[in-house]
Amino acid sequence: MNTFGTKFRFTSFGESHGTAIGGIIDGCPAGVELDMSFIQSELNRRRPGQSPVSTARKEDDRVEFLSGIFEGKTTGTPIAFVIWNQNQHSADYEHLKNVFRPSHADFTYQQKYGIRDYRGGGRSSARETAGRVVAGAVARQILNRKGIRITAYTSQIGPIALDNDYRKYDFSQIETNAVRCPDTEKAVRMIEFVEKMKKEGDSIGGTVTCVIEHVPAGIGNPVFGKLQAVLASAIMSINAVKGFEYGCGFNYLDCPGSELNDAFCMENGQVSTRTNYSGGIQGGISNGQPVYFRVAFKPTPSISKTQQTVNMQGEETELSIHGRHDPCILPRAVPVVEAMTAIALLDCMLNG
Amino acid sequence: MNTFGTKFRFTSFGESHGTAIGGIIDGCPAGVELDMSFIQSELNRRRPGQSPVSTARKEDDRVEFLSGIFEGKTTGTPIAFVIWNQNQHSADYEHLKNVFRPSHADFTYQQKYGIRDYRGGGRSSARETAGRVVAGAVARQILNRKGIRITAYTSQIGPIALDNDYRKYDFSQIETNAVRCPDTEKAVRMIEFVEKMKKEGDSIGGTVTCVIEHVPAGIGNPVFGKLQAVLASAIMSINAVKGFEYGCGFNYLDCPGSELNDAFCMENGQVSTRTNYSGGIQGGISNGQPVYFRVAFKPTPSISKTQQTVNMQGEETELSIHGRHDPCILPRAVPVVEAMTAIALLDCMLNG
Amino acid sequence: MNTFGTKFRFTSFGESHGTAIGGIIDGCPAGVELDMSFIQSELNRRRPGQSPVSTARKEDDRVEFLSGIFEGKTTGTPIAFVIWNQNQHSADYEHLKNVFRPSHADFTYQQKYGIRDYRGGGRSSARETAGRVVAGAVARQILNRKGIRITAYTSQIGPIALDNDYRKYDFSQIETNAVRCPDTEKAVRMIEFVEKMKKEGDSIGGTVTCVIEHVPAGIGNPVFGKLQAVLASAIMSINAVKGFEYGCGFNYLDCPGSELNDAFCMENGQVSTRTNYSGGIQGGISNGQPVYFRVAFKPTPSISKTQQTVNMQGEETELSIHGRHDPCILPRAVPVVEAMTAIALLDCMLNG
Amino acid sequence: MNTFGTKFRFTSFGESHGTAIGGIIDGCPAGVELDMSFIQSELNRRRPGQSPVSTARKEDDRVEFLSGIFEGKTTGTPIAFVIWNQNQHSADYEHLKNVFRPSHADFTYQQKYGIRDYRGGGRSSARETAGRVVAGAVARQILNRKGIRITAYTSQIGPIALDNDYRKYDFSQIETNAVRCPDTEKAVRMIEFVEKMKKEGDSIGGTVTCVIEHVPAGIGNPVFGKLQAVLASAIMSINAVKGFEYGCGFNYLDCPGSELNDAFCMENGQVSTRTNYSGGIQGGISNGQPVYFRVAFKPTPSISKTQQTVNMQGEETELSIHGRHDPCILPRAVPVVEAMTAIALLDCMLNG
Repeated sequence: MNTFGTKFRFTSFGESHGTAIGGIIDGCPAGVELDMSFIQSELNRRRPGQSPVSTARKEDDRVEFLSGIFEGKTTGTPIAFVIWNQNQHSADYEHLKNVFRPSHADFTYQQKYGIRDYRGGGRSSARETAGRVVAGAVARQILNRKGIRITAYTSQIGPIALDNDYRKYDFSQIETNAVRCPDTEKAVRMIEFVEKMKKEGDSIGGTVTCVIEHVPAGIGNPVFGKLQAVLASAIMSINAVKGFEYGCGFNYLDCPGSELNDAFCMENGQVSTRTNYSGGIQGGISNGQPVYFRVAFKPTPSISKTQQTVNMQGEETELSIHGRHDPCILPRAVPVVEAMTAIALLDCMLNG
Repeated sequence: MNTFGTKFRFTSFGESHGTAIGGIIDGCPAGVELDMSFIQSELNRRRPGQSPVSTARKEDDRVEFLSGIFEGKTTGTPIAFVIWNQNQHSADYEHLKNVFRPSHADFTYQQKYGIRDYRGGGRSSARETAGRVVAGAVARQILNRKGIRITAYTSQIGPIALDNDYRKYDFSQIETNAVRCPDTEKAVRMIEFVEKMKKEGDSIGGTVTCVIEHVPAGIGNPVFGKLQAVLASAIMSINAVKGFEYGCGFNYLDCPGSELNDAFCMENGQVSTRTNYSGGIQGGISNGQPVYFRVAFKPTPSISKTQQTVNMQGEETELSIHGRHDPCILPRAVPVVEAMTAIALLDCMLNG
Repeated sequence: MNTFGTKFRFTSFGESHGTAIGGIIDGCPAGVELDMSFIQSELNRRRPGQSPVSTARKEDDRVEFLSGIFEGKTTGTPIAFVIWNQNQHSADYEHLKNVFRPSHADFTYQQKYGIRDYRGGGRSSARETAGRVVAGAVARQILNRKGIRITAYTSQIGPIALDNDYRKYDFSQIETNAVRCPDTEKAVRMIEFVEKMKKEGDSIGGTVTCVIEHVPAGIGNPVFGKLQAVLASAIMSINAVKGFEYGCGFNYLDCPGSELNDAFCMENGQVSTRTNYSGGIQGGISNGQPVYFRVAFKPTPSISKTQQTVNMQGEETELSIHGRHDPCILPRAVPVVEAMTAIALLDCMLNG
Repeated sequence: MNTFGTKFRFTSFGESHGTAIGGIIDGCPAGVELDMSFIQSELNRRRPGQSPVSTARKEDDRVEFLSGIFEGKTTGTPIAFVIWNQNQHSADYEHLKNVFRPSHADFTYQQKYGIRDYRGGGRSSARETAGRVVAGAVARQILNRKGIRITAYTSQIGPIALDNDYRKYDFSQIETNAVRCPDTEKAVRMIEFVEKMKKEGDSIGGTVTCVIEHVPAGIGNPVFGKLQAVLASAIMSINAVKGFEYGCGFNYLDCPGSELNDAFCMENGQVSTRTNYSGGIQGGISNGQPVYFRVAFKPTPSISKTQQTVNMQGEETELSIHGRHDPCILPRAVPVVEAMTAIALLDCMLNG
């Protein structure tokens, strides 16, 4: 299953060290004038090599559209695009041909398919998410025209965590630092922490918070297409994600219903709520309040420290992963979370 | 969308105070001899009125099968079933006709559909999950024959929490107490806490932990049908769920990759891992280790304490919800988590 | 796969001699006031025992709705319904337990599932189509409000055939005779022919023509969801159907493009066509002209004449099928063709 | 909807005069060694400019694979491919920008999307089918290994028709002539007829017959996923197709059931049938006999004769289509019918 969505459908393809990665967007509304520089700028936010806290790999990540756009506008037909692979040091991976990297997908792909492209993780490489960023950047342009604003940021790296309440932060600060954290003081500490990990040949995880503002009421479905289920499915499909919570989530577990229920009130003639522990969703359907959620990312498993593992012959062995890897994936995960959120939300909206 | 799954497809129907609830299981393998008493016993675990910590409503919840079974065996054709509604005090809900209950689905259904069955929450009632328990009990019988064992339990109620490591607990103790908690001492405290909430006309949330043992390696898909995404989608479709985490989840965020990577080793001639922070899934595909996850439930929003709200005319008003409600949904949520897990896992397995 | 449609989804269940047949309609628009007597009258058109040319079986075929309707209106939630089985002479079928009826589904079900409900054909019985008629009658009410009119009629039985051009016939005559043929003279001959077949213990096939008037332009999709492909898929799912053609179909194969191209013209300020060999569909999308198609039905394979066959032990044997069967299924197929057309068309329209 | 299939899923993209056409095959089994020259030879059979009876356009139609293949074998991940567009005379189409070609998709696309790529028909061009041929050639290689053989041929062009019974023909003769007809004498007459049409600036339709040999019993589903419905849906998605019939189809309508029922018999210890009016499918499921069907194609609507039409301003006007067009699409449709058959059948088989 390499397709996400039912009305706005994104089908992804490509391996890290194959010819290209890319995808097809099917079901995109017709007549949308696409801002190509926005799409490229989103790709640039995900691109490796953009800061000292990310990998030193250089990938140009230029997107080329092959169909579905005529005279600058979408035509309602499938939008296919490719991002050519280049700057691949496939030889870097020759030593991984015969061995399973711990907490990577090497072993499970081998079990499932009996074959795997071991170069750079093949299909399981986070490089695959570049295609999602392109599709997400198309979806976001459509959502933007409806006034919907999606903002994600790094809310925790290792032990340095922001407050749960996103309203405390100034979103305009997110892109001012290498870790995409709106709290610029904590950003400095996060960067220091990541650099320490990098020096130690280690890696670190954290959380991304995402906020969707101005979602109209009525999006999502009662039972199995609940908005939170679609978002969770979209987000859990991102590499290294280990948890998803929205609204009160895993927090406030010791608070009673009388404190967590969101009292309804009237605001400018509209039904609103005094609090938003629901995270903007009630009974699977948006209620017009901001939708927000938090995502847990594990540390990237590619570390240069020596690890115990097993090879294809079923022998225990040791492994040290060389190559150019991110010591902390969070900053580059931020645009991917936004992209998957945009794809999932637009799909829900087009489903009515 | 009232269907879950692609190969083992469960379609749910029914409102709390309509004629019946039930569903259709499509794609069930043929020739399976069904243990009907197991299906009924699972329904009994979910049934209201089973203990002092749950609602006093009495619902008999007898399942009647209408098709797809011949001489005690499945035939490969759709299995339809109904659970007739009875003991409905619809008059209890007349006072809710005109008002939106806070943190319920009243307002969002009204926004989406322009009409709602206000009796007992209608389609948004947790009564709908009885149908899922039936489908789950069918799925579990098929999984059981493959040696797969699904166990869920209450791991937190309010401030009383169990340790994250499920291996510390004796699963045989789960059904010995009214809260379905394997730590029998904490179970006593949990029950006291729930009873206190009940007396105060309030409610409380918590977490359910679920463990799937003996999942074969190779289940799930690389990109969008990741096993964790399918499980998250299944679990997030349960009423009152606010979060899903698997493996290391939101915990251990301050641990580096070198500590969280699961070193591979050989065990009885099989590739195994020394730790299981991955939660049995790598790259979206099961690796043969136990799959485990934790689910956050908010307090049930039906409380008798007075609440601020708004009515259909857009006027602010007060509300106190009468009727018979669960002060804590966790114990009855345990079999629902197991059921959705079984449905989702079997579907993934049949998808190959 | 017992579900048809993606937005207006009908899931069918039930065996001929099980407890009930029925289904779930998911995705029905909310707020539609349903005319229950219309639904029942459609069921009556399909019901056996309605005339001398159909089977003598009496089936009451009363539909009971279980969900999705509140105070007479659809609520947007799944509409489940059942039709209880009764008047089953299961003993009639005991002699078929061990033998494969020629051109029936006995052998293929046994091959696929290793088990089959042999009573009255089980799931393969045309009785299953009663559920489709219910779903179709719901869909038709929604289409009717958009001004769309679906009319099917018997256009051929055995050697007695109507002209291809449906505009030559007065649709108001269709329900005036037992074979549902608008040419009342040919209807008399058709009835005589069917009665002759019945006396001989034989059966006969024919064609049904279906016309959809007032389909708005723009319905259907360019490549794989072509309107004609969705209609063909819907119609080919009806028992005994062997062929589907629309517009010029298999006719006019010796006419050049210059004769078959439908010249565009202006008519009352609207783009129209002078001819309609396209059958109202161009490039998979409706063009605003009437959509029409013709369907071939083989003779019902249940005949009392002695036939050669094979039993479960792989021995050649003879068989004579008793019981009460239709010598010609065409008249009762007419409402089924209309129902599947309505379901398919509404689904396409809701898909945008 | 530009995706066909549920397990073996082909998603198509591309416009006639855009950058490229192509697609993604998702769900292809892993470990299949692909014969690339076979894929290219299938493309060559569909390619324009291959004979005097097809268009004079030259399209090289070289396929380039971008993913999903590693060291010559499929990896189970999506197989993306492109065929670059070249030799486009876009200027040829400038005169069509403002006018609707009769019986083409210009008007319906404009109605549905409010925008269209008018160059060479854009997405509605039969050039799109080249991608299907690639996907079909992958599917056929997998089917071939299971011993399944798909053969299509031209069975009628204009008034020159072959006998219905495919067993009368020597399939080895199909590729010996420009019209792909196994009756070499009739092939000569067909070619003459097409050349006459071409000279007159006109076009002609006909039928393609397709035979699938060695389909195992048990493929397809009882109700909505009937094998014939899936095949019909696949075939009706091909440009210019107006009808689909299988087995006895629209023929033999005057024969009674006693003549058309396929008596079962034993043959080499296997259940077989003495006749095959069922076309290898009973109750939606294959019975092990050959599956065969016939497809009606209308004449290509691109003719140079002057036609009446309407322009974008709603004015009646005249049109003569220049450019290089096929006077008869049948010979080039043969590999497309085979391709869609292969895709649909493999998908059904992988669905179990």
